[in-house]
Amino acid sequence: MSQNIYDDPVFFEGYGRLPRSTAGLAAAPEWPTLRALLPQMRGLRIVDLGCGYGWFCRWAREQGAVRVLGVDISEKMLARARADTADLAIDYVRADMEHLELPVASFDLAYSSLALHYVENLPRLLATVYQALAANGQLVFSVEHPIFTAPSRPGWTVDADGRKTWPVDSYLAEGPRRTNWLAEGVIKQHRTLASYVKLLLRSGFVLSHLEEWGPSDDQIATQPALADERQRPPFLIVAARR
Amino acid sequence: MSQNIYDDPVFFEGYGRLPRSTAGLAAAPEWPTLRALLPQMRGLRIVDLGCGYGWFCRWAREQGAVRVLGVDISEKMLARARADTADLAIDYVRADMEHLELPVASFDLAYSSLALHYVENLPRLLATVYQALAANGQLVFSVEHPIFTAPSRPGWTVDADGRKTWPVDSYLAEGPRRTNWLAEGVIKQHRTLASYVKLLLRSGFVLSHLEEWGPSDDQIATQPALADERQRPPFLIVAARR
Repeated sequence: MSQNIYDDPVFFEGYGRLPRSTAGLAAAPEWPTLRALLPQMRGLRIVDLGCGYGWFCRWAREQGAVRVLGVDISEKMLARARADTADLAIDYVRADMEHLELPVASFDLAYSSLALHYVENLPRLLATVYQALAANGQLVFSVEHPIFTAPSRPGWTVDADGRKTWPVDSYLAEGPRRTNWLAEGVIKQHRTLASYVKLLLRSGFVLSHLEEWGPSDDQIATQPALADERQRPPFLIVAARR
Repeated sequence: MSQNIYDDPVFFEGYGRLPRSTAGLAAAPEWPTLRALLPQMRGLRIVDLGCGYGWFCRWAREQGAVRVLGVDISEKMLARARADTADLAIDYVRADMEHLELPVASFDLAYSSLALHYVENLPRLLATVYQALAANGQLVFSVEHPIFTAPSRPGWTVDADGRKTWPVDSYLAEGPRRTNWLAEGVIKQHRTLASYVKLLLRSGFVLSHLEEWGPSDDQIATQPALADERQRPPFLIVAARR
């Protein structure tokens, strides 16, 4: 079973205070980029892998999706997601993505925001998603960028003259990375960017888009702290079709 | 016109001493990976973009290619390439890849080794290559990896405890990078990995493979100095089909 750090009291409390937790999609700076890769929601059957508080599930319904399945490993997040909607077209199901099963040809869109980097057996999950998509179905997801997850000791280095750099090592050494983010000992799976692409292609997907997200000028103007993210992208965003 | 650093006397002299110059393909540690992505050469019409001394052109003919066109901007390299073969099925042509023109539907394989990161107008070149490929034609190329080309001051940083890291900054700032490699003021074009992929997709290519090359265990055993390249990949290798 995957680590369920989201039900750790310290992590859950910290996560619940993040802007993206309290204010939803609009508070996630990468959301406009992700949204631009999504198809029109009207009439779609959608599965959200790692749905958390359900912000995307509710948005998809507002946009006209006919059925939304939100999957998450965290009891606490699902409890809040359920409490936040009375919409009978949204189902929330607790599941470990390492062992998730989905019905065949039942979804038009599989979506995942910053969750797949927790999954150890990604080939298995991608095969599951592939068979669960209907003809022309799409997969759109974000993960922490491999440059971000690679380092054995992640964190900015500041030169004597103030230049910030991100010290990359171990990039080609795939596997778990233990970090202290909101709580101690959060385990993420580092894979190379090539691995994400190769796993998709081997599963049968056709790659349709790839983004290495960084903040726009407008975003930096309103949130100057985002400027550092231009030095190395924090998120990888991928779109593929069946 | 692109910078023609290969005809700079200091650069040419230094380049001519590199193992890959004196011993050819077998001395390039990424060659086995590139080769594995190539189709069977027998019967193919091939264009080599940045053919240099012509090692690949001669190898392709040995493997059964029926016609090989080698393109390079360097007079000196082409002179040696021409001197190294009497094969009438190999043509060497001097051209600047910024302005290259190729006949329509005339090649089965476009190949390029460590040359496209010198090209400023890559969208134009990819459009040229796309129309020059026959149905089911393939493009296979290597470039310096974006993690390698990104830094404003490239070079390893060594921690107090001996850990080597590659200090990434400016990753999302695409454009020229001036480095001192073999000669001073060598200009390469940094683009993100996502840009390489998006430019290919926008040109109509279907991505078929992506590799972030690092040395194998066997290669490190025989050439221990290669071990550092595991910390961050030096080369990006891409295969796409028309």
